[in-house]
Amino acid sequence: MSKHPNDNTAATVTAQPRPLDPKTYPLLSRISTPAMLRKLPMDKLLELCEELRRFLIDNLSVNPGHFASSMGAVELTVALHYVFSAPDDRIVWDVGHQAYSHKLLTGRAPLFYSNRTLGGLSGFPNPAESEYDSFSAGHASNSISAALGMAVASQLKGEENPRRNVVAVIGDASISGGLAFEGINNAAISNSNLLIVLNDNDMSIDRNVGSLNSYLVNLNTSKSYNNLRMRTYNFMKRLKLINESNRGRILRFNNSLKSLISKEQNIFEGLNIRYFGPFDGHDLPRIIRVLTDIKDMKGPRLLHLRTIKGKGYEPAEKEPAKWHAPGKFDPQTGKRMSSASASASSLKWQDIFGTTLVELARKNSEIVAVTAAMPSGTSVNMMAEAFPDRTFDVGIAEGHAVTFSAGLAKEGLLPFAAIYSSFLQRAYDSIIHDVAIQNLRVTLCIDRAGLVGEDGVTHHGVYDIAYLRNIPGFTVSAPRNATWLRRLMLTASMRESGPWAIRYPRGNAPASDSPEEPLSELQPALTGKGELLRAAANPESKGVTLLTLGPIALNAAKAADIVSSKGIDCAHYDMVFAAPIDEEILLKAAQLGRPIITVEDGIVEGGMGSAVAEWISSRGLPLKVIRLGIPRKFISHGSVAQLQTLCGLDAESIAATIEKVAQFPTKISLS
Amino acid sequence: MSKHPNDNTAATVTAQPRPLDPKTYPLLSRISTPAMLRKLPMDKLLELCEELRRFLIDNLSVNPGHFASSMGAVELTVALHYVFSAPDDRIVWDVGHQAYSHKLLTGRAPLFYSNRTLGGLSGFPNPAESEYDSFSAGHASNSISAALGMAVASQLKGEENPRRNVVAVIGDASISGGLAFEGINNAAISNSNLLIVLNDNDMSIDRNVGSLNSYLVNLNTSKSYNNLRMRTYNFMKRLKLINESNRGRILRFNNSLKSLISKEQNIFEGLNIRYFGPFDGHDLPRIIRVLTDIKDMKGPRLLHLRTIKGKGYEPAEKEPAKWHAPGKFDPQTGKRMSSASASASSLKWQDIFGTTLVELARKNSEIVAVTAAMPSGTSVNMMAEAFPDRTFDVGIAEGHAVTFSAGLAKEGLLPFAAIYSSFLQRAYDSIIHDVAIQNLRVTLCIDRAGLVGEDGVTHHGVYDIAYLRNIPGFTVSAPRNATWLRRLMLTASMRESGPWAIRYPRGNAPASDSPEEPLSELQPALTGKGELLRAAANPESKGVTLLTLGPIALNAAKAADIVSSKGIDCAHYDMVFAAPIDEEILLKAAQLGRPIITVEDGIVEGGMGSAVAEWISSRGLPLKVIRLGIPRKFISHGSVAQLQTLCGLDAESIAATIEKVAQFPTKISLS
Repeated sequence: MSKHPNDNTAATVTAQPRPLDPKTYPLLSRISTPAMLRKLPMDKLLELCEELRRFLIDNLSVNPGHFASSMGAVELTVALHYVFSAPDDRIVWDVGHQAYSHKLLTGRAPLFYSNRTLGGLSGFPNPAESEYDSFSAGHASNSISAALGMAVASQLKGEENPRRNVVAVIGDASISGGLAFEGINNAAISNSNLLIVLNDNDMSIDRNVGSLNSYLVNLNTSKSYNNLRMRTYNFMKRLKLINESNRGRILRFNNSLKSLISKEQNIFEGLNIRYFGPFDGHDLPRIIRVLTDIKDMKGPRLLHLRTIKGKGYEPAEKEPAKWHAPGKFDPQTGKRMSSASASASSLKWQDIFGTTLVELARKNSEIVAVTAAMPSGTSVNMMAEAFPDRTFDVGIAEGHAVTFSAGLAKEGLLPFAAIYSSFLQRAYDSIIHDVAIQNLRVTLCIDRAGLVGEDGVTHHGVYDIAYLRNIPGFTVSAPRNATWLRRLMLTASMRESGPWAIRYPRGNAPASDSPEEPLSELQPALTGKGELLRAAANPESKGVTLLTLGPIALNAAKAADIVSSKGIDCAHYDMVFAAPIDEEILLKAAQLGRPIITVEDGIVEGGMGSAVAEWISSRGLPLKVIRLGIPRKFISHGSVAQLQTLCGLDAESIAATIEKVAQFPTKISLS
Repeated sequence: MSKHPNDNTAATVTAQPRPLDPKTYPLLSRISTPAMLRKLPMDKLLELCEELRRFLIDNLSVNPGHFASSMGAVELTVALHYVFSAPDDRIVWDVGHQAYSHKLLTGRAPLFYSNRTLGGLSGFPNPAESEYDSFSAGHASNSISAALGMAVASQLKGEENPRRNVVAVIGDASISGGLAFEGINNAAISNSNLLIVLNDNDMSIDRNVGSLNSYLVNLNTSKSYNNLRMRTYNFMKRLKLINESNRGRILRFNNSLKSLISKEQNIFEGLNIRYFGPFDGHDLPRIIRVLTDIKDMKGPRLLHLRTIKGKGYEPAEKEPAKWHAPGKFDPQTGKRMSSASASASSLKWQDIFGTTLVELARKNSEIVAVTAAMPSGTSVNMMAEAFPDRTFDVGIAEGHAVTFSAGLAKEGLLPFAAIYSSFLQRAYDSIIHDVAIQNLRVTLCIDRAGLVGEDGVTHHGVYDIAYLRNIPGFTVSAPRNATWLRRLMLTASMRESGPWAIRYPRGNAPASDSPEEPLSELQPALTGKGELLRAAANPESKGVTLLTLGPIALNAAKAADIVSSKGIDCAHYDMVFAAPIDEEILLKAAQLGRPIITVEDGIVEGGMGSAVAEWISSRGLPLKVIRLGIPRKFISHGSVAQLQTLCGLDAESIAATIEKVAQFPTKISLS
């Protein structure tokens, strides 16, 4: 039996626990399971909330993570673990940003120092890490569907656990995703014991988008009605006037109450989900009371809590977007430290993308920008500043982002849609059905492509090359540096038809790299044409041919330097395009007769290296093609450099592979 | 400049027009553009509707297609083309089922005899076929996002066309898809001139699912309010009391009117979409009047029309699900002809799947079934009959279907999720993020895999092998016959963990194939192990090694027979698995030293053949690997046999490839 690919990755926490100082954290240091929390009286619970916040500030200021969301969810988390009995009851977090307190209360506070580092805790709920993490939660909007499945399963397996509560905790940004809606639409017709807690801070990572959000904001106005209804309900319950058999009557009563009091139209009730709220999500006694009241009701329910992102830390409350993932900061002053000064001379890929897009847009009025809830992460906000009317943030809705872009392109505009690679997986059918089949001029600017580092297994953008290069008509490219990103964007903006993808990673472009040419002097890239980076010094000598895609070229170039001192000669081409593949380069590589090593920051099965293997083997050439990339297993979190080493993609590992593979040339006959 | 892959496929209609007989179709025969329709008086429009229905019955009874949906949309289509000016105004159809009348009214009645046949009209709106088909419409739920993009683009390019109307026509089943919700959520915050027409026949292909649907049904009760509102609106308009500047006041007036009259909560108005309806979608004068009234309003609007699927043909009205795509039928009696008697002795893949699933479920109470709006298409309805509580039809919501299955599996159930291959593209992220990363025991039963024939370019299920085999931990299999389907399902039901995919095509399993073994005597398949079908007769002779996946094995076997008469010797293995690939077979193939030909019913880039190419080239073996499959271009509609020939996958084409490639063995040294 072969090991599951997870076995040697995200699942294994090797970090050693560091017990908390009981003087600093008198309560938190003693809580290793939620059962212990449930024994505390209310005043201690309130103290615990204070300790949790302090712990988050103390820890995240030195070991960066997602700050503001978790600060806003402290009371909510304590209340959930107080009222429900995890792990028997299932709490399904939607996106892990908000779940740090949950980790701290389920035995992982002593490990939290290792959060998001190699061998440490995952930054997101991860069932392989803890039985309290009931479901994977890296991508938004999946919690309701998953929780519904879990609730239905509990019912079907009724003998074992007749009454299990399943709670999905979803943010107001996540709930606007199509998957969440599909979940709600199905949950509402089931009889499952599903409770949806809507943690509404009116704030996604950037700003919130869509009419559902406006709707949620406006729900405030119906507070009076809901308060009245809740009070009435509790009153009737205390008098034992409510039971399951007369629930229908109560609901009708509620409805007439509503029509009397409220002008509001409640969408959730329209969809047959019983709605409670909005309540103040920081009023711990209150939400414990409400949760207790609605816990035993049957059927799907939604509890709407208002929270403040960054709650309890003033700088974060004031600027919640900047404090979503602030990096290191000084807890006293709230001053955020800039990231590693070593790379101060180089620019982020995102900024090069953003500035270039604005430059292109100035020259071509057809260019528009689309993003899905990541305007600052992708630097689409630069475009939004320069051309607000030509910039569209559609919220967490990747499918819509791509199909909407297709609509824009169908009418002659030239959309650049900037979406993170792993989230773009959500739009796969839109890419094929709405863009590619119609040969539309949509440019996918695939951000966070390749290994992303600390966000880990759910966020690595490693499938895109493989899932795009087989789509007919798709051009798939990856720049190795800033100048090439600009050249590719320029070329994409000049084309007459057809879909393009340009993928580039998170973080800084190579430090040596300063894209100084003005756009007007920039050479467009030639579609499907790569570039020679290093010619074979001596074609007769022992060596290999390196074919790389993207900035991993730098590691390969270093590897070539390393082995050259050992008398191994490398030729090195940057392929630039995974599709169409540059057959001239392949021909040259074949003629050189040396083993070929392909290197890419993507899954090796089906990637650029496979295109090379397909070409070589279709000709029956006796040339080894060794494909380096992300192996077919799930990769953990850690620094990008650490993970590259884990995958054999650092310069030293590549050098070792070269040494192992290098041969004297084989005589190749190409007919 | 290379040709777009579409150039030689779906786009080209080569069928010759056959003019309509003016005696039979006095109006339709004279209408070649909607502009001509707009000149007709109301009584003639009503006659035109009658002619359209007659034409649909006459034609679809002999040349099968999607019948009931188009019958229900006749008045709606005539009204849209009467009120709006296509192609300047854009009508975006959501799923083409309903759009046949649209094709007939836009110059394609003389070509309609060729519908869904090779070189003929596409069964779905296809922009490459007609400028009146404003967007691709094969998969559900994309119309609102696409139309919003088109409306926004029109506004941005204001000088050229200051006031273009964009209309999305969406069914009540499609609107429950997540993409449609994302579209609505974004449309509602834009100022675009977007009109959404909801064609509500309370009936998806099978039955409708979800709370939104119940909600739509209940909207009937608010008819009185909407009628009053509409009458008030029209009255005020006639008196010229309404203009854009006072629209806000009118809306407020409407709202208070509503709170007075209606107890209903209108979801769409809650989401800031102005709602009109429900109206009788067969009352032509009425819907023309309503459309005219709301045409010039600004901002997003939704018109809710109630229609009857199959309207105007009694047998179809009575059993709309069966008449969705009825095949050939006798127009007089309504008797549906069974499909080709030649294959009467063999079973549909779907039926083998359905019966086997029920058999397995009887033995294993953990087995449950999930489908997304295709219970009869996938035969999941057999499971629904036997185990209604263990069968879940989630509606058009593929992402939810997979994430929901992950939730079921997380709690120890063993879901078999039967989804069409091309629709499963919608669930790609759910597959990676919710199933594979958690190594959950979800079995994807990928129906309609490979070339699907008449449904054409949007429906071919040709990417699944490539997009699944690179996901860590995924087992990807394809049976070549009924017995193997049963064996694979048995094995899948016995496994302890991890995701599986079993792909099989539309239509009948091989005729020779009768899976008579009872389940108890059936041999489970060995994961990752293929099967020898034909040993090399003479390993020294000229020949090839055939490696096939799925039922295309039969074509390859025939091809081997064909060439054997010419002295070419074939070895033939059924790989059964694309992942993990059977390395023992690859080793044997390598040792045989003959060129390898891989054959699969999927895209050749990144498919099973690529796995073979990867393996061979990673060893530097001088063996040709020729990959046959779907070439990297979009494939048109036609019979499966015709399309196989087009792709070089019929027996004769494979034989020709074998002849071209066959060689005497090369001596291979495997270290």
